[in-house]
Amino acid sequence: MSRIVTVGAAQLGPIAQTETRHQVVTRLLSLMQRAKRHGCDLVVFPELALTTFFPRWYFEKQEEIDSFFERSMPGRETQPLFDLARALGMGFYLGYAELVVEGGRTRRFNTSILVNKSGEIISKYRKIHLPGHAEHEPWRRFQHLEKRYFEVGNLSWPVVRAPLNEGSAGLYGMAICNDRRWPETYRVMGLQGVEMVLLGYNTPVHNPPAPEHDALSNFHNELVMQSGAYQNGTWVVGVAKAGCEEGVDQIGNSIIVAPSGEIVAACSTLGDEVAIARCDLDLCNSYKNTTFNFARHREPEHYRMIVERKGAVLPK
Amino acid sequence: MSRIVTVGAAQLGPIAQTETRHQVVTRLLSLMQRAKRHGCDLVVFPELALTTFFPRWYFEKQEEIDSFFERSMPGRETQPLFDLARALGMGFYLGYAELVVEGGRTRRFNTSILVNKSGEIISKYRKIHLPGHAEHEPWRRFQHLEKRYFEVGNLSWPVVRAPLNEGSAGLYGMAICNDRRWPETYRVMGLQGVEMVLLGYNTPVHNPPAPEHDALSNFHNELVMQSGAYQNGTWVVGVAKAGCEEGVDQIGNSIIVAPSGEIVAACSTLGDEVAIARCDLDLCNSYKNTTFNFARHREPEHYRMIVERKGAVLPK
Repeated sequence: MSRIVTVGAAQLGPIAQTETRHQVVTRLLSLMQRAKRHGCDLVVFPELALTTFFPRWYFEKQEEIDSFFERSMPGRETQPLFDLARALGMGFYLGYAELVVEGGRTRRFNTSILVNKSGEIISKYRKIHLPGHAEHEPWRRFQHLEKRYFEVGNLSWPVVRAPLNEGSAGLYGMAICNDRRWPETYRVMGLQGVEMVLLGYNTPVHNPPAPEHDALSNFHNELVMQSGAYQNGTWVVGVAKAGCEEGVDQIGNSIIVAPSGEIVAACSTLGDEVAIARCDLDLCNSYKNTTFNFARHREPEHYRMIVERKGAVLPK
Repeated sequence: MSRIVTVGAAQLGPIAQTETRHQVVTRLLSLMQRAKRHGCDLVVFPELALTTFFPRWYFEKQEEIDSFFERSMPGRETQPLFDLARALGMGFYLGYAELVVEGGRTRRFNTSILVNKSGEIISKYRKIHLPGHAEHEPWRRFQHLEKRYFEVGNLSWPVVRAPLNEGSAGLYGMAICNDRRWPETYRVMGLQGVEMVLLGYNTPVHNPPAPEHDALSNFHNELVMQSGAYQNGTWVVGVAKAGCEEGVDQIGNSIIVAPSGEIVAACSTLGDEVAIARCDLDLCNSYKNTTFNFARHREPEHYRMIVERKGAVLPK
């Protein structure tokens, strides 16, 4: 018996600031059609996939910032994605900037959704690990103002049971970009039995505060997703917005990682591209039931510092 | 300014069951001498470095089991290690089986110590993640009875400030074998600012409950130490008892990993061998102050499941 889900990691090349939602959605629809021709059940798009990566600029006017946000999902311009999902019988993961009125105030999140084969949203995630900074730092060649433009997510890391695969419904989780560098991200989903983590990102090659890491960008990208997969016995699908976008180089290196930690599919360009893998969710069991049988081997009473402490506290 | 500690990863080849403590200690002394000739400040020996890896057998008689344990450290047979450390002005990490009377009862731990350049024990760790099983399982070609022979450690993962390096004293932590597969291990030390994790292991190539992982043993060994290093901005020194010991093949693959996650030194045999690296503890800052600035970027309120749950609980 096997529980195969055929996944397309639908990498996007750069999106210009002038590109309209309609133009971007047209590119996404084209990638969905291409994935379908290869038998995909599920397509994974990047983080903030509907616009250019706008946190690279400092904007003074709130309406300029808000122009990058979606006020409803689906909205008028994104409805065709949901229609095509239903028509093709194919699910998708999509990252976008979400503007919502909650608790009587306007809130902004870096969000992703999982849509099933009927074109229905079945799960939503709001990014928890916001990287970058909150204040304008003119010394940088470009900004990374996620801590300014977004709030920390408030939906934890949800894992949902979804019939996207053959056999009994799989357990799917979501994360976004910088989340993937933090082992806590995968562990919270692992503790819900996750079998596939869907994850989009925009990662500049150049990190202004630590340019000495630039040459290791792809290595680090692979390392964190491979270890997250292995240590939780889960598939991980990591998908980039890649290439030189508005003068800033972003890594590609979109990969599909097996529960063994092995990379089984990868993009090799920095443009719009689909990497495909037939992923057997039952391969997770080989890890979840042995080396990473949590109920048998974890020792949570010794992990308390992880939640009791935010920053490091050094011994005397 | 740099804070260099020159480290020798002192891998051991197999130790036969008939080998005496005196014979083993003679091998360790020889490795210490060799490391000193290469300018080492610190030598790292494997887990349970004084005997064969005895949890591979089911013993009925407690005195047989206890023959593998140390009742004092240093003891008569291990005193020469401490004497040589002082004579050479070189620290060491040593793993051994510890039998101790605590709280009015005899207790047994899988333990490691850190000894300074004056031959004094400055830190002790007792293994928390005990792998394997507690009952005899005759279907296995060999046993892995750590859960039978040892208690779970009760000293957390201590990090100590120790003047083993040039410049201001470094922050050193310890872990043992299976601990290295669990990101919680590194994180608890990362939250104490650890700059170098010392870690010995005995890892059979063949895992009886999951033989499908055997071909990936070295890959997994590297993956978990590299990600643990990167995600906490720390050096990791992982040292094997290697080779075919009493009919059981154990991996070698002893490595020294930089805070970047890069492997900077490695053993290439399965015997007694020293791999050497000059490790600059100040390289940790490049990660601890940017991508992994915990005080700035961690979100512990969203990690609570990690301590509230031991095993996975699946969504409906």
